[in-house]
This record gives sequence, C-alpha cells and structure tokens, in this order.
Amino acid sequence: MSFSDHIRICNSYDPARALPLLAGNRRIGLLRRDNAEMLRRFPDVFCVTADAVRLVAQGDPAAVSRAVDAVVDALVSEQWLPRWRDETFDVAPRWGEAPVLRLDRGAVPFFGTRAYGVHLNGYRRKGDDLYLWIGRRASDKRIAPNKLDNLVAGGIGNGHGVVDTLIKEAEEEASIPASLSKTATPAGAVSYRMENRLGIRDDVLFVYDIETPADFAPKCNDGEIAEFTLMPATAVLERVRDTRDFKFNVNLVILDFAVRHGLLRPDDAEYLEIVTGLHRPID
Amino acid sequence: MSFSDHIRICNSYDPARALPLLAGNRRIGLLRRDNAEMLRRFPDVFCVTADAVRLVAQGDPAAVSRAVDAVVDALVSEQWLPRWRDETFDVAPRWGEAPVLRLDRGAVPFFGTRAYGVHLNGYRRKGDDLYLWIGRRASDKRIAPNKLDNLVAGGIGNGHGVVDTLIKEAEEEASIPASLSKTATPAGAVSYRMENRLGIRDDVLFVYDIETPADFAPKCNDGEIAEFTLMPATAVLERVRDTRDFKFNVNLVILDFAVRHGLLRPDDAEYLEIVTGLHRPID
Repeated sequence: MSFSDHIRICNSYDPARALPLLAGNRRIGLLRRDNAEMLRRFPDVFCVTADAVRLVAQGDPAAVSRAVDAVVDALVSEQWLPRWRDETFDVAPRWGEAPVLRLDRGAVPFFGTRAYGVHLNGYRRKGDDLYLWIGRRASDKRIAPNKLDNLVAGGIGNGHGVVDTLIKEAEEEASIPASLSKTATPAGAVSYRMENRLGIRDDVLFVYDIETPADFAPKCNDGEIAEFTLMPATAVLERVRDTRDFKFNVNLVILDFAVRHGLLRPDDAEYLEIVTGLHRPID
Repeated sequence: MSFSDHIRICNSYDPARALPLLAGNRRIGLLRRDNAEMLRRFPDVFCVTADAVRLVAQGDPAAVSRAVDAVVDALVSEQWLPRWRDETFDVAPRWGEAPVLRLDRGAVPFFGTRAYGVHLNGYRRKGDDLYLWIGRRASDKRIAPNKLDNLVAGGIGNGHGVVDTLIKEAEEEASIPASLSKTATPAGAVSYRMENRLGIRDDVLFVYDIETPADFAPKCNDGEIAEFTLMPATAVLERVRDTRDFKFNVNLVILDFAVRHGLLRPDDAEYLEIVTGLHRPID
C-alpha cells in the first residue's frame, strides 16, 4: 500500500461505464449501465436511452419520491438492493439546492446520487506530539465492520444540516456533549467517486477538527463504535500508509488532516498527488 | 466578483488550444498552438508535429539547457519573450524528479512548464479574532504591481528546496529571521492552470502558515513589498470576494487558508466549489 493507493481506491469510477441520471436537464445521479438496464421495466418512472436515464415521474418531491420508492421496493424484493428504511437522503443537482426527491440510503449507490457526510477529527496535543482519537467500528456494521474510523462520522440525512448531523452523531456515537461538539471547526471537504458492487458512490465528506480537552475521553453510546483509542498521529499515518485497517474513505479524511497540520511535508514523494487527489471536482 | 470567480480566472487553460511538450515519452510542458508554431524555425531543438512538440536537443541537462536557451535568446531578441536572467527554473516531468533542463523564468509560460512557488500566510490571534499579514507589492514589480500579497511568496528557483526558498524569501522580502520562519508549518498546496498573454502558467504553490508573535512585525527589505498591514481576516476575505485587489493567485492561497481555518463554512453556497477548485490535478 501507499498513501495514494487509498485515493485511487476511492476514485475507481470509470465514466465509460455509467450514464447520467437526469431530472429535466440537470444531472442528479450516475447509473452504471447494468443498473440503468434494470430500470427499463419501469417506464412510468424512468426513460432509459442510449446516453442517459431520465426521471419521468411527475409531481412534487413527495410524489416523485413515492414513485421512485416503488421501484426501489421492487428491486429490494428481488434482492438487487438492500434497504435501510430508517434513513433517506435528499437528492438534488447541487449542494444547497431544493431536493428533487428523497431516496432510501440503501439505494443511493444504485442511482449514483451524491451523498454528503460529516467526519470529525478529534485530536489532542501532548507537548509537541499530536494524538488522534480513533474509533473501531462495531462488528455488526453493514459497511466496513471492525474497520478503524474517525472520532465521529455520519451521513447527512434529509432535512438535516451539516452541524446538526455532527452534533447528533457526536452524542450518539461518542457521548460528546453538544457544548463540546459545537466547538468543532470546519476545515474543508474530501470528495471522491467510487464504483462498488451496488453502483457508484459520489461522496462529499465535510471535514471538521476538534481539539479535545485533557480531561475528556469519548465513550461508546449507540453501539456503532466498539472502542476509542488515542493514537499518536504518526502511528495513525503509518497505519494508513501500510494497511487497509481504516474504513476506505477515512484514509482520505486522515490524509487531509495530515496535510493541513503539517504531518505530511512537500518532500514526501506523494505530497502533490495527495493534496490534489483528495478533492475530486463536484461536476 | 465572487470567491469562485478567482478560481475560474486562474483556471482559464483550454486543452484545445495547447499541445504537449514532450521529452522522450514524458510531458514536460504545454505549448499554446501559436507558440508551438514559432518553434518550427528551430528543428535542431524542437520537432513540431500536429499533436505534440518534441524536445530533440540531445545531451545532459546542461547541454539541453544551452540549446533551449539559444531558442529563448532568439525569441527574446524579437521581443516575443521577456528575459529574467537572474533566475532559472528546473523543468522535470514531475515534482522531485531529476530536471531535463533549466529554463529562464521569463520563458516558463511560453513553454508551459510547471512552476513551483511557496506562499506563507502570516496570522495573529487577538482574542477570538484572526488577523492576516498582507503585503502590498512594489509599483515596479514585473508581475502584478501594487497588488496585495501574502506575507511572503516566491518562485522556487533551480537547485532550491521549498523550505530553503521560504526562509530566503522571508528574510529578503519581510526581514523575518530564519529562527522564526523555520517555525512555519506546511499546510498543503494550491494548483491551477491559466492561459495568459505569454502562454500557459501551470503552477503549484506550496502553502505554509505561521502564527507570528505579538511583538513581531514584518519589515520591507529588498523593495519587493512596499508595505505590510495586519488586516482582520474577515476583511481580507470580503476584499477577496469583492475586488481584484489581490494578485490573481494570492486570492486562491487566502481561500485555502479560510477553508482550513473555518473562516468559510459549509453553508456558504460556494463552499464545495472553492474546496474542490483550489487543487487542480497535477496531470
């Protein structure tokens, strides 16, 4: 492994294998061609042509969501898709625009709609040394069980803001009180586009940093994280470079932290590949 | 103006208007087609075809540099190019690789070879408020006279490292002693590709931050900067958004600083455009 291998893994998307999903003349997703083919059976909802899939269901976001959800239901019942039920994501052409529909989280990669998350780097200084709070994901997590994770991370469900999600997840996953999580500072975003078994992940992760007080330690709360460890930042970086112990996208969030805090330096042969590779354009 | 207008200005490069400059099978530059045409007169040094310009001068870097420099001499004498004489840049396929040749700084955009610089954000905290040291460039500067600038900025000449350049320029431009400039922290890089009158700027700026002590103020030294002002960071950002007062690429360095220090937040409509727009791939 190398640092940039993790960036390549998260950017495995190949445009030749995908079609745009259009709502009107705006792109709202990316369908792998095999997934696009499966939508031909639902001509009231989708129109599949050689170069695009068009959302043809009409109505307000609630009506369009119902129509798409019926398609998702059919695909779930045939075991093409998992269903999360407890969580839907807003689907819009761009961040901050009004949603066209809401989609079950399990169906997001199938349609390749852009998903937004928030990741929190928790760190502490001891003298000149920097330490990072690292979580280990529970063994029953649907995605990346047992893998190492940031202090807090979560997807931004429909109707929730970035800071809301951060505060909620910080409380649920790590027992961090709102009075503390509110002091987290936004520090950028990591973006990548990745093909997986289900389809295409077109992800944007808003990145926050928090320096935790000396008398604070996160505690597992909702069972999503099995344990938290305060690891020397240099050891974290070595483990990122040499292993796949971290969840695929957490490697990128840690690399971004390492660049911003001077743990990686311009004399590293991979430096420019890392700096420019963490922020895929949001086209 | 808007924040992302500055990013667009620095990324005006249009691939349809350029040909690769190749050394063997590696790309070392980008020639605008009109510039490529002018090289047909020098068949011992360059071979111009429909889809590429090949460096055909043979020998070690010193010999190749002399051959290319003779071409530069001819173009300078016909006033197609300026000459700097006092400064040459290494030309290599990638950062950290052995240079193929050294090129007069004035000829760098003509050949579209990648140029590297280092920019230092100097900041100070007063209570919860953040201030930035802003320089005003001298009126006799060749590029961007009278424009606002970072605390320190300079191109990385051949044979010099990033930190060497930073320490040298900090002393020369702002009278910052090495004991202080050594405490600057690397914080990433900004990259862009821009067409201008002379050709194509394919630039990478290594970005450093330094928190200056309360009893420190930079002083003009070599006449490159006319004055330094400690400005509230929020006022700096507003001036970036609303004006062209800053040197074109300094806007990007300040936006990168603002993202990393949480002065810009995810609820800014331009946030993702900014975060992903500051780091053009180094292909």
